[in-house]
Amino acid sequence: MSAPGPRSSLVDLALPHVRDLHAYTPGIQPAGEGWTKLNTNENPYPPSPKVEAAIRAEAGEGLRKYPDPKSTALRMAVARHHGLRPENVCIGNGSDDILNLLTRLFGGGEKAVGFSVPGYSLYPVLAAIQNGKPVTLDFDRSMKLDVEAAAALPASVLFFTTPNAPTGVGFANADIERLLQKFGGLVVADEAYADFAEENAVSLLEKYPNLCVTRTFSKSHGLAGLRVGYALGSAELIDLLDRVRDSYNVNRVSQAGALAALEDQPYFQAVVGKIKRTRDECAEQFRARGWFTYPSAANFFFTEPRDGKGRSGPEVAQGLYEFLLKNKVLVRYFPSHVLTRNFLRISVGSDAEMLTLSQIIDLWQKTG
Amino acid sequence: MSAPGPRSSLVDLALPHVRDLHAYTPGIQPAGEGWTKLNTNENPYPPSPKVEAAIRAEAGEGLRKYPDPKSTALRMAVARHHGLRPENVCIGNGSDDILNLLTRLFGGGEKAVGFSVPGYSLYPVLAAIQNGKPVTLDFDRSMKLDVEAAAALPASVLFFTTPNAPTGVGFANADIERLLQKFGGLVVADEAYADFAEENAVSLLEKYPNLCVTRTFSKSHGLAGLRVGYALGSAELIDLLDRVRDSYNVNRVSQAGALAALEDQPYFQAVVGKIKRTRDECAEQFRARGWFTYPSAANFFFTEPRDGKGRSGPEVAQGLYEFLLKNKVLVRYFPSHVLTRNFLRISVGSDAEMLTLSQIIDLWQKTG
Repeated sequence: MSAPGPRSSLVDLALPHVRDLHAYTPGIQPAGEGWTKLNTNENPYPPSPKVEAAIRAEAGEGLRKYPDPKSTALRMAVARHHGLRPENVCIGNGSDDILNLLTRLFGGGEKAVGFSVPGYSLYPVLAAIQNGKPVTLDFDRSMKLDVEAAAALPASVLFFTTPNAPTGVGFANADIERLLQKFGGLVVADEAYADFAEENAVSLLEKYPNLCVTRTFSKSHGLAGLRVGYALGSAELIDLLDRVRDSYNVNRVSQAGALAALEDQPYFQAVVGKIKRTRDECAEQFRARGWFTYPSAANFFFTEPRDGKGRSGPEVAQGLYEFLLKNKVLVRYFPSHVLTRNFLRISVGSDAEMLTLSQIIDLWQKTG
Repeated sequence: MSAPGPRSSLVDLALPHVRDLHAYTPGIQPAGEGWTKLNTNENPYPPSPKVEAAIRAEAGEGLRKYPDPKSTALRMAVARHHGLRPENVCIGNGSDDILNLLTRLFGGGEKAVGFSVPGYSLYPVLAAIQNGKPVTLDFDRSMKLDVEAAAALPASVLFFTTPNAPTGVGFANADIERLLQKFGGLVVADEAYADFAEENAVSLLEKYPNLCVTRTFSKSHGLAGLRVGYALGSAELIDLLDRVRDSYNVNRVSQAGALAALEDQPYFQAVVGKIKRTRDECAEQFRARGWFTYPSAANFFFTEPRDGKGRSGPEVAQGLYEFLLKNKVLVRYFPSHVLTRNFLRISVGSDAEMLTLSQIIDLWQKTG
């Protein structure tokens, strides 16, 4: 290459595709008090008290030392939890870290990156950062997984969210198994919400080395602020992940906090059970308003608002989004896709938060 | 592309260069008690007590929420600390995160990745992960920066450690400025150890948009276990970093802990001052043994051991390394380069640790 002069702009020095990149836009994290925050699928309940104790125990002198580069204690506990071996587990700085590493391993150049649309909106961002050709697995309004179409995608890796985001619809293991039998690449079942579902794909790992299951402590364990997730897969896959992983990707405090959360199963089960009950009650209330609401296997639901005159559509969804925002209730609106723009995605909050939401919707329907 | 069958191995599905990757080998983190750990340049003193208080304050309910995606409070404090603006700062999950992002922006394909050899051994690993052609800036035993040779490197980005690792030798701003004037790419001054040096490159940022300075809380702030580092650069560079950065790369606890450390300047100054005094005393002791020891501007020194008969060389260095290891003293040995294989890199520990080291070396010299 011929070196450009020192006065060229930095973007000219960067790889050509960087010019067209945009940072991922996460849900709003409002400053200040008084918000009802139902926009990023956080857990409305605090993490286990044992997490606080574990973090306090890590807060002092030991921080001068690097963390265990393999997150060994956590890795072993995760393996035990799922009936796997430690060599089947890779711990990440959030499951976003894992998704990024998978994209770096299998995407870019001639290797296309497949992902479900709608799905977690990070996948196309990661594919773009890696300059990987995006290949989409498109759904229709039924949100059913089209196994034949998915298996035919010309991609080295296929990411899909199960239960899906933002719809909350869960996919059956029977369908995922057929996909694993037919697809030529790696299937990544992004199970960020699987703890709220009746089924998950972990049992398929033993039979299918082309499956990777990703999980997070952010949702069901109430630890979004700590950034811990993991991959489950064959020993070969975990070895590949370790080749591209930062050796100190998970700090001491996060390793200890996540381990404490995982070990407090009674607390975990109680919180997840409560969220599922609230979810199902609220979904029924939305349906009672006459709003189409997908059956949710996650900690949020995807509902199609109708205004006081019974109308739905993008203007109605956006209108309610803005009305809620004005009243300090945050939900998520995805206006850019035909299958999402009539809907709002609403995280399951506490009983008090869901009551606030319901009252403001009543007000909107009256005034609209 | 033609999709391979489901029975192909995963490494065949991955990008071709992945086959040849190896995970970075960090320094040994021993389990169990009784070790004198002088191998990873950790701080022998605990972090500021205010860090512990800040982490404890973050350990509870708030963890259910995602962190501030821009690490705003920390970013502002870092900017103030260096007399810059927040748009000149990007916070990373350790400075390794920043180095990785810089490699992803500027390396790969036709864009070669330049780095100093010897230097931080992560650079070639990051270049390999990105499949970027490595271009080395080679030193001779003088460890002087050859500005003309560096400026002529056909690379888009040039990483160099200053003060250098593993030698500890600091580079003069006058030389770095000449490099910035002549080199056509981005210069990354990896200042992981700059808090122990007399000079740093921050003042050059205003004049040279092709400079990036990276820093870490791991060494001088005693927070290796927390994983926080940062980049300083032009607003354009920070914008590029944000395009490829994970939006939640730094968790709540790490943001709060690093902020508390930065704000406790009296504690910081006291610890850094003590380490520098210990470093200079110990370096003099090594020289008094007749061991060539580079002048160190870091929290470690690079010394060429001589055995009881006055011999030096790779066998002597390795022999002492193994003798120390057997006696539960860990230092770092880099056998694979002609400029490093006669030397050991020894982190500056507490007074008691340096005494232990000295006594075991005496024993080795007597028995060798």
